[in-house]
Amino acid sequence: MIKKALFPGSFDPFTIGHEEIVRRALPLFDEIIIGIGINTSKKGLFELKERKVMIEELFTDTDKVKVDTFSGLTVSFCELINAQYILRGLRTAADFEYERTIAQLNQAMHPNLETILMLSQPQYSMISSTIVREILRFDGDIKPFVPENIYRHIMDRQNNKS
Amino acid sequence: MIKKALFPGSFDPFTIGHEEIVRRALPLFDEIIIGIGINTSKKGLFELKERKVMIEELFTDTDKVKVDTFSGLTVSFCELINAQYILRGLRTAADFEYERTIAQLNQAMHPNLETILMLSQPQYSMISSTIVREILRFDGDIKPFVPENIYRHIMDRQNNKS
Amino acid sequence: MIKKALFPGSFDPFTIGHEEIVRRALPLFDEIIIGIGINTSKKGLFELKERKVMIEELFTDTDKVKVDTFSGLTVSFCELINAQYILRGLRTAADFEYERTIAQLNQAMHPNLETILMLSQPQYSMISSTIVREILRFDGDIKPFVPENIYRHIMDRQNNKS
Amino acid sequence: MIKKALFPGSFDPFTIGHEEIVRRALPLFDEIIIGIGINTSKKGLFELKERKVMIEELFTDTDKVKVDTFSGLTVSFCELINAQYILRGLRTAADFEYERTIAQLNQAMHPNLETILMLSQPQYSMISSTIVREILRFDGDIKPFVPENIYRHIMDRQNNKS
Amino acid sequence: MIKKALFPGSFDPFTIGHEEIVRRALPLFDEIIIGIGINTSKKGLFELKERKVMIEELFTDTDKVKVDTFSGLTVSFCELINAQYILRGLRTAADFEYERTIAQLNQAMHPNLETILMLSQPQYSMISSTIVREILRFDGDIKPFVPENIYRHIMDRQNNKS
Amino acid sequence: MIKKALFPGSFDPFTIGHEEIVRRALPLFDEIIIGIGINTSKKGLFELKERKVMIEELFTDTDKVKVDTFSGLTVSFCELINAQYILRGLRTAADFEYERTIAQLNQAMHPNLETILMLSQPQYSMISSTIVREILRFDGDIKPFVPENIYRHIMDRQNNKS
Repeated sequence: MIKKALFPGSFDPFTIGHEEIVRRALPLFDEIIIGIGINTSKKGLFELKERKVMIEELFTDTDKVKVDTFSGLTVSFCELINAQYILRGLRTAADFEYERTIAQLNQAMHPNLETILMLSQPQYSMISSTIVREILRFDGDIKPFVPENIYRHIMDRQNNKS
Repeated sequence: MIKKALFPGSFDPFTIGHEEIVRRALPLFDEIIIGIGINTSKKGLFELKERKVMIEELFTDTDKVKVDTFSGLTVSFCELINAQYILRGLRTAADFEYERTIAQLNQAMHPNLETILMLSQPQYSMISSTIVREILRFDGDIKPFVPENIYRHIMDRQNNKS
Repeated sequence: MIKKALFPGSFDPFTIGHEEIVRRALPLFDEIIIGIGINTSKKGLFELKERKVMIEELFTDTDKVKVDTFSGLTVSFCELINAQYILRGLRTAADFEYERTIAQLNQAMHPNLETILMLSQPQYSMISSTIVREILRFDGDIKPFVPENIYRHIMDRQNNKS
Repeated sequence: MIKKALFPGSFDPFTIGHEEIVRRALPLFDEIIIGIGINTSKKGLFELKERKVMIEELFTDTDKVKVDTFSGLTVSFCELINAQYILRGLRTAADFEYERTIAQLNQAMHPNLETILMLSQPQYSMISSTIVREILRFDGDIKPFVPENIYRHIMDRQNNKS
Repeated sequence: MIKKALFPGSFDPFTIGHEEIVRRALPLFDEIIIGIGINTSKKGLFELKERKVMIEELFTDTDKVKVDTFSGLTVSFCELINAQYILRGLRTAADFEYERTIAQLNQAMHPNLETILMLSQPQYSMISSTIVREILRFDGDIKPFVPENIYRHIMDRQNNKS
Repeated sequence: MIKKALFPGSFDPFTIGHEEIVRRALPLFDEIIIGIGINTSKKGLFELKERKVMIEELFTDTDKVKVDTFSGLTVSFCELINAQYILRGLRTAADFEYERTIAQLNQAMHPNLETILMLSQPQYSMISSTIVREILRFDGDIKPFVPENIYRHIMDRQNNKS
């Protein structure tokens, strides 16, 4: 049986913190599905389609990574795609408390699903999609926080707007 | 003087985590008032009346537990009903930081009011009303997280809707 | 070069916790700018102008403290006013995690900007603007939580309303 | 059945932090046993007998508090003296993690034993026996950290030594 | 290349908490080496040899688990045995802070070594070798905390002593 | 009055984490005293004199930094040398809890003494003297963790030994 992991998130947008977790986890799994969760009650900054395109472009160098969107519970999506693992990055102790709650909950609902945690590198520990959106909102420089291709994509978009 | 404790919360809905705290605290007090706080700025998933009925039904086996609703500050409600204690359950370190802030604040406003904390059992530490509402929203199975009678109540309600 | 620190926040309203940090930090700096951040997406309880007047009134005894408003990124405002330091008060471990993220981010964008942290006195550790607004909303007594002049200001305002 | 709580610790020496927890908890219980745990592998600064005398002297105003010494597991001592509750004070998030581990362990070994937690007042949150011993070792002033009678006791002892 | 993980620790003794992490991680790796670290400065309760025998006996049902002892740095042992992964269980936020420090350190010394974290099940989160030794010291019941075979081993040993 | 800060610690040995805090704090103070606390009950790895020499050598480029040793309470030493500030670096939330306890204690004993906290850069957050000693004990490579001159000093010392 192939080892398949879901890496779930909103990825609005995908950051270099997300990228490093996926790349470091690649040798451990046969396939990693980056699952963009659809939050019907909150409009994101980037369209779902746009997010998907940006992430796919980032991982064209490997066919072990796939990108998909999903709505509903994360555990249900894992069942649907036959993922036995949920992959998550940990940055801070606050992250830890949150991830523990979610992981224990997922296991109560779906006992065979394992959550695998990897620690962010220290220099990426302050990066999050929320922070990137906030900096964008005030026209700050997001270059240090997102992958190269995503940076270009976002800059093009900003320029087209004005 | 009888020992009266307020167990305040939104209870939208009441979970097995809430139930275990109340039941374990019962021998310590003469009366426990489960106080459903009214949040005028946020509409809950369950009507106040519905929440009250579900909780009352759960504790028909004891007359030491009463259920009430209140608006305004928790300390003011304690004064009104002559409760000398606020009872709270602690699940995580994040809970602790929150509870400490609230308890210190309550004591600054009302020095004779004591906050009594009890630790959730480990297997309940990931359960919260927020989580139950989230699972419901995606048609997940909430059975492991709420008391039996509340589960039936909610299922009936879901079926009537469709 | 004079040592200039920005003390940024919403200050909606300014509390005795804020005041003690500024007063304790005064000997360390030549000038402290209390910077009221403008949040365009969220209407505050007090008007920006009102907040500014209340804080200025509080520090009429020293000319080392100035009050200003700003929009956009905190680091950009520091650059604009030539502040080399950001001053922040720490109350709890939760505060710490948040401040660390922000400070690391600011330093990634502006390497010469230093964040200086001071610990709240324990008896002030539960006070925040959010808490003061919440107590006001329910007509509770905010006297122990805000400076004398701000208390009078707020009471006058409440009386004029009714 | 009378409500009996054990307040266990080394109390080497008993601090004003310990005292405030016991006094605030008194209305809740019919009897509080202050249990001085004997640690055979570590010699304390104060003799067990001395600690016991100092604490008993402090609570001569109430007959609801008794002082005892015990060796072995805390749960075993609770069984021996028929205490249904363990009373503990919480100061910080670090305390919380420790207390949770101990409380869950005690409950795994003795399911009917409840741990009741009360939060230290903020101004006492930095006081511990370890700190008092450390200050004593360097001839610092311990007066703000221990009850009046214990302060006199310790000063007499220091003077007799020299 | 086979996926080999080191699960390092003192295992003095091995608990059911350790066992569950190894068993849940088994599908993810081709081989898990349980590495008993030799601490020359501290004599353990159980002899290294004894610990090794007890753990080997526990995993006779699988040949993917091997048990070894090592002294020196964990990263050096990983290099020696060609393990690309360090496997660790996380119980509490305090664990997290510790594991993060160690993992970041290991990566600074050995960039290709990945630390994989799995969360303990909630009901095991209070179990540690330290706790088991403490309970043993006071003749408490360790049955709920260690695997069946290790329990029998320890009981035989205790009986032989007396 | 000149602004004088004490940077206290054991510095056994001084790390690049310590160095960055001192260098980043230099513009804020007129003088920083690096105070090596003497712990009579614990023999260090490096002699006090050796530690002092290594640190002095590191800061020969500035005369704002002085190195001294002290025994007794940190607050007493501050009084002795007329330091109005204690400077401390913060790495993790666990550090925070510890520093808060110490700072509150110091302020209870010496109200005019201020503790100024600066956050370690993320890439240094896992470095401590304890870790360096541990790596040395197992002949690991400490080069990434200590200043250049201290690295050479320690290597010379190791070679002389063998």
